[in-house]
Amino acid sequence: MASSLPCVVAPLSSSSSCFGSLPRELCGSSPSLLPTRAWTSQNLQVRATGNTFGNFFRVTTFGESHGGSIGCIVDGCPPRIPLSEADIQADLDRRRPGQSRMTSTRKETDTCKIYSGVYEGVTTGTPILISVPNTDHRGSDYNQVSLAYRPSHADATYDMKYGVRAIGGGGRSSARETIGRVASGDIAKKLLKEFSRTEVLAYVSQAHEVVLPEHLVDQESVTHEQIESNIVRCPDAGYADKMIAAIDAARVTGDSVGSVVSCIVRNAPRGLGSPVFDKLEASLAGALLSVPAAIGFEFGSGFTGTRLTGSQHNDEFYLDGHGRIRTRTNRSGGIQGGISNGEIINMRVAFKPTPTIGRFRS
Amino acid sequence: MASSLPCVVAPLSSSSSCFGSLPRELCGSSPSLLPTRAWTSQNLQVRATGNTFGNFFRVTTFGESHGGSIGCIVDGCPPRIPLSEADIQADLDRRRPGQSRMTSTRKETDTCKIYSGVYEGVTTGTPILISVPNTDHRGSDYNQVSLAYRPSHADATYDMKYGVRAIGGGGRSSARETIGRVASGDIAKKLLKEFSRTEVLAYVSQAHEVVLPEHLVDQESVTHEQIESNIVRCPDAGYADKMIAAIDAARVTGDSVGSVVSCIVRNAPRGLGSPVFDKLEASLAGALLSVPAAIGFEFGSGFTGTRLTGSQHNDEFYLDGHGRIRTRTNRSGGIQGGISNGEIINMRVAFKPTPTIGRFRS
Amino acid sequence: MASSLPCVVAPLSSSSSCFGSLPRELCGSSPSLLPTRAWTSQNLQVRATGNTFGNFFRVTTFGESHGGSIGCIVDGCPPRIPLSEADIQADLDRRRPGQSRMTSTRKETDTCKIYSGVYEGVTTGTPILISVPNTDHRGSDYNQVSLAYRPSHADATYDMKYGVRAIGGGGRSSARETIGRVASGDIAKKLLKEFSRTEVLAYVSQAHEVVLPEHLVDQESVTHEQIESNIVRCPDAGYADKMIAAIDAARVTGDSVGSVVSCIVRNAPRGLGSPVFDKLEASLAGALLSVPAAIGFEFGSGFTGTRLTGSQHNDEFYLDGHGRIRTRTNRSGGIQGGISNGEIINMRVAFKPTPTIGRFRS
Amino acid sequence: MASSLPCVVAPLSSSSSCFGSLPRELCGSSPSLLPTRAWTSQNLQVRATGNTFGNFFRVTTFGESHGGSIGCIVDGCPPRIPLSEADIQADLDRRRPGQSRMTSTRKETDTCKIYSGVYEGVTTGTPILISVPNTDHRGSDYNQVSLAYRPSHADATYDMKYGVRAIGGGGRSSARETIGRVASGDIAKKLLKEFSRTEVLAYVSQAHEVVLPEHLVDQESVTHEQIESNIVRCPDAGYADKMIAAIDAARVTGDSVGSVVSCIVRNAPRGLGSPVFDKLEASLAGALLSVPAAIGFEFGSGFTGTRLTGSQHNDEFYLDGHGRIRTRTNRSGGIQGGISNGEIINMRVAFKPTPTIGRFRS
Repeated sequence: MASSLPCVVAPLSSSSSCFGSLPRELCGSSPSLLPTRAWTSQNLQVRATGNTFGNFFRVTTFGESHGGSIGCIVDGCPPRIPLSEADIQADLDRRRPGQSRMTSTRKETDTCKIYSGVYEGVTTGTPILISVPNTDHRGSDYNQVSLAYRPSHADATYDMKYGVRAIGGGGRSSARETIGRVASGDIAKKLLKEFSRTEVLAYVSQAHEVVLPEHLVDQESVTHEQIESNIVRCPDAGYADKMIAAIDAARVTGDSVGSVVSCIVRNAPRGLGSPVFDKLEASLAGALLSVPAAIGFEFGSGFTGTRLTGSQHNDEFYLDGHGRIRTRTNRSGGIQGGISNGEIINMRVAFKPTPTIGRFRS
Repeated sequence: MASSLPCVVAPLSSSSSCFGSLPRELCGSSPSLLPTRAWTSQNLQVRATGNTFGNFFRVTTFGESHGGSIGCIVDGCPPRIPLSEADIQADLDRRRPGQSRMTSTRKETDTCKIYSGVYEGVTTGTPILISVPNTDHRGSDYNQVSLAYRPSHADATYDMKYGVRAIGGGGRSSARETIGRVASGDIAKKLLKEFSRTEVLAYVSQAHEVVLPEHLVDQESVTHEQIESNIVRCPDAGYADKMIAAIDAARVTGDSVGSVVSCIVRNAPRGLGSPVFDKLEASLAGALLSVPAAIGFEFGSGFTGTRLTGSQHNDEFYLDGHGRIRTRTNRSGGIQGGISNGEIINMRVAFKPTPTIGRFRS
Repeated sequence: MASSLPCVVAPLSSSSSCFGSLPRELCGSSPSLLPTRAWTSQNLQVRATGNTFGNFFRVTTFGESHGGSIGCIVDGCPPRIPLSEADIQADLDRRRPGQSRMTSTRKETDTCKIYSGVYEGVTTGTPILISVPNTDHRGSDYNQVSLAYRPSHADATYDMKYGVRAIGGGGRSSARETIGRVASGDIAKKLLKEFSRTEVLAYVSQAHEVVLPEHLVDQESVTHEQIESNIVRCPDAGYADKMIAAIDAARVTGDSVGSVVSCIVRNAPRGLGSPVFDKLEASLAGALLSVPAAIGFEFGSGFTGTRLTGSQHNDEFYLDGHGRIRTRTNRSGGIQGGISNGEIINMRVAFKPTPTIGRFRS
Repeated sequence: MASSLPCVVAPLSSSSSCFGSLPRELCGSSPSLLPTRAWTSQNLQVRATGNTFGNFFRVTTFGESHGGSIGCIVDGCPPRIPLSEADIQADLDRRRPGQSRMTSTRKETDTCKIYSGVYEGVTTGTPILISVPNTDHRGSDYNQVSLAYRPSHADATYDMKYGVRAIGGGGRSSARETIGRVASGDIAKKLLKEFSRTEVLAYVSQAHEVVLPEHLVDQESVTHEQIESNIVRCPDAGYADKMIAAIDAARVTGDSVGSVVSCIVRNAPRGLGSPVFDKLEASLAGALLSVPAAIGFEFGSGFTGTRLTGSQHNDEFYLDGHGRIRTRTNRSGGIQGGISNGEIINMRVAFKPTPTIGRFRS
């Protein structure tokens, strides 16, 4: 019969942890308990770990909490685009934990530096290395991590696959990995804006059970400033307050909540995406499900749209005043047949409640 | 001011269509109305159209309704695997429209033939070409398609991007393209079963507003035979009847409905997927959103899971009787940190109501 | 001490072959002699076999001599390009063995058919399946192949890697695989010509020890017709005769000779290729070394250029009458810093003597 | 008629340069003279610049002489491999110019640092960032470069393609880019040695007209120490002296010479490479032609082998004392049918004389 192993599921920061009292052998990393793969010259295998994304605008991220630095290389940025560390720093500051009580309370001072690909203030068309030093990489907060698998983290699967524990804050599964995504995304947004006046905006549309009604956000006109006007980044002030209250309610009991982030793309060029396997929605879904903690993706009418009939769901075409083909509704979310049609691309990503919590599961 | 163009939005098979009365120039394909890209030697551009999928087991699909044949090449199938046309035909027969009133009433007799990669009944490790002839490729049913963009189809976006109308049944956006997916998927399922006893099962879990309650399906034990026991492929007989009734109700009014398909993977090897961009869920989401009409993807707890707290959502670890790390619950859907953990992988895909309907939008 | 195994090195068609007299166990395919990999459910591994080439214009080839057909899928051909089977057939006829005594005497009637991607005489932008049936796929000529590894063929390495003998004419290592290359190359040449008046020409510049002096071919003006004017495809009639004599001399003794093929690209657009790993010469070298029997590649001055000094080798720039940057010499072979500079791209590929010979090694 | 533009071809460091006397407009960067691409929001295009190599062991290099640092990210290194900066530094020291009079006299102190992917002296399986700071990146030595295209450099083609001059030492075309290759290659060599005792050795086998006879090097036994025993890295002391004399003869006149580098791989696993497009020789040729200044590649018998007949060229099989299939000769260079056969892989790469010279072309 299966034997329970409570220490393995002990939450990270519990003061009543069994780590101290149980022998290490029972706490998760012992070969006798775990089918950890041993690397020897016999079974040594080289395996790429999926840190590169994209073909034309190609991003490779690197770094973990315990190393010297963290960041990315951007390959494929055209030359002669003005770019400075200050541009990128603004978005990194938005990402940084510890800005408000809504997020992780870790203190990170993430100051980026560009080491290549920019000369005299403009890009040169060569790879751009952006790096943020890890000012505090002792990993002391996470020492106990080496003893047990944290539930619903990457600890167990990393160990199964690589035979390496998620040291020093989760290794590549740490949310700190997203520094490279934010820095490269900042450059991408700048290019899209210059190339086609394309704007990408995202906001929180659900926190725990507080769901922002869709009609409260006008996708044509919502602004970055409205989204940034509160600490939960919901463009509606009233619902922002409700979300903050819901998060606070969980937070004071040492718990976390799930959420949904809505993303819209305005002025997306027509013709993005390809038929069959490289449909635009397939690329977007693949990209967004790679964000840590993402567990769902939908665009246009999404899961709700499954409750409609074809006659209710179809988007009627018309010619606008400029002779452009448009649709009167946008249940297709700006994508038809795998290709953007010029309407606003909209999508929603579900995030699980962060598994790093300060209390036992009841 | 925007001028309405009713003929463009006329449904395909409406008897009151405006196609006959309006001049062709107003119906969608005129250069004066449409920003159709003209291909000349000046702007000729070569663009891959995304018909290849996968790195190790690599599938390239080809064919459209109006051509000579349709099918796929599978590259990466190991040698010495028994494989016959009959194996593949069984799944093609399941795919074929016209099996019941639940699906398109088009008559297709899809008989596959293997042209390479198999010798004396076993694979040789070389590319396997599987082809199904198009027995009726006059495209006569779709003649009117050349006149107007069908709403929520690929007609408009294909024309915007390629300057080619979706002739003869939708070209590559036709559901007939999935013949290549089914044939290659059949080989993949066979390999997975032999390699690791991995089973992949999918069933309809929602049709229009009829939602199959999750607890009615035991993911550990549900069988292919249970799923195949009714024409809507829902493993619960009672809910299958309700779904059939819902589809019939729409069908008799010339309408269609949306749906959700659930998919489970049993005995998936641990360690599939990679950290960061190549997470297993990212690959699955990208693959499944490439299926025609897919508009949403979730795994594990999915969108519903966003309403939980971390303490409710975390999956507790334990050691089973064989000394294997397991989780007591499976809200992670078999994937943690982007890597399979050995539990059942489960996911759901939302499909929009098929836009090809026999009535006007009310 | 090493034991000799003469039967393994017996040439294919030798009448004094040991195949008949030696037991099969000693002739190459016995598990006791060969470290052939056995495929079981334990060590089953899926491995792509490299049959796809290119990103924008992407070719996947399939087929072997013993299967039903052989050919390719071309993905990425733009729409609205006129294309017929007759276009492709012309180049397939040039490829076909048995045209003259210079080549293999196998009889092949390679009649191609297009099964997808072309509608009413023009491409549709979707994958183009081109297939040639194997009219004679009994493999009877090659029955003895199953008994021994032919020297310097792919037999041994295919068996080491795949555990599958090169049945029916060499499987994918057969020169017949190049049918897919020729058919797709024909489309590529057509596109290049339309897009940028780019011309690709190749001719035999060495056969055995007969070396065509470079100054006898004017790369600016040499024509397809000059190349096609003789059976060895050397544009200089005198040297063509010498090459034919050299090949004949080897042929009558049942032997074969090595050769060099020169290739020039006129009107190549400037700017092809990328710095660092995707240099144009790197892509060309990788492509050309994938041609069966290729054993060397050089461009511009090549191996001969290593004997020059920098001052002798550098190509002087000047502005031509149209204000275009040109070089007075072209030792760079049209490529500088990995990027085409608008001069004629020239390269040479070395081919080993075909290992399929009718006599013992002396 | 074409007008000559002498200043464009003036060598870099010539004291009689015309840079000072000609107006800048005539010296290369003027829009009226050069078809430089202007980047505007209209024609802005994103283009990957080919800085990533490999699929399993994937290397991305970054950096140019004028930036903050230069180096690489290695993705796909397995975990638990001991790795230190000292390991890599040894090979970087071998690469560094200024070690002897044989190489560029630039002074570079290239001290590497590992910023990620290594923890407590062993790899973690995550991306390894290796970076070397540019201690002197004023680019003052190269100021004149901004004025004219250096002959047979990347200056002109970079400008044609990217509209960016090769500033500060050649940008990505600088030999300094190879720092990232050397650092990642060092890790690759370490893995190969541990995995399969595979050794990779390279030595100079030709300098200008001094050609090392093949029989003077025993590929089975030649050692790293023999190669390193002299400043030109030729394992034969006598020929090393001749090569040094040849280089010196050119050097004192401000000139450079071409060369050939031979590379051997001992204990390469059997079965590397795939049929058709991914043949091992195709991958090797593509990789090696991406090295700056490489203009030719051959393996096995190479161009010389074209002068043999099939009966002379074929490699006879035999079984060695351990029952292993071997070949008595190795004209195939360890590769047959695109797949390694276990014999020594040998190849040669031709390098043009470095175009950066200190004198006019006579």
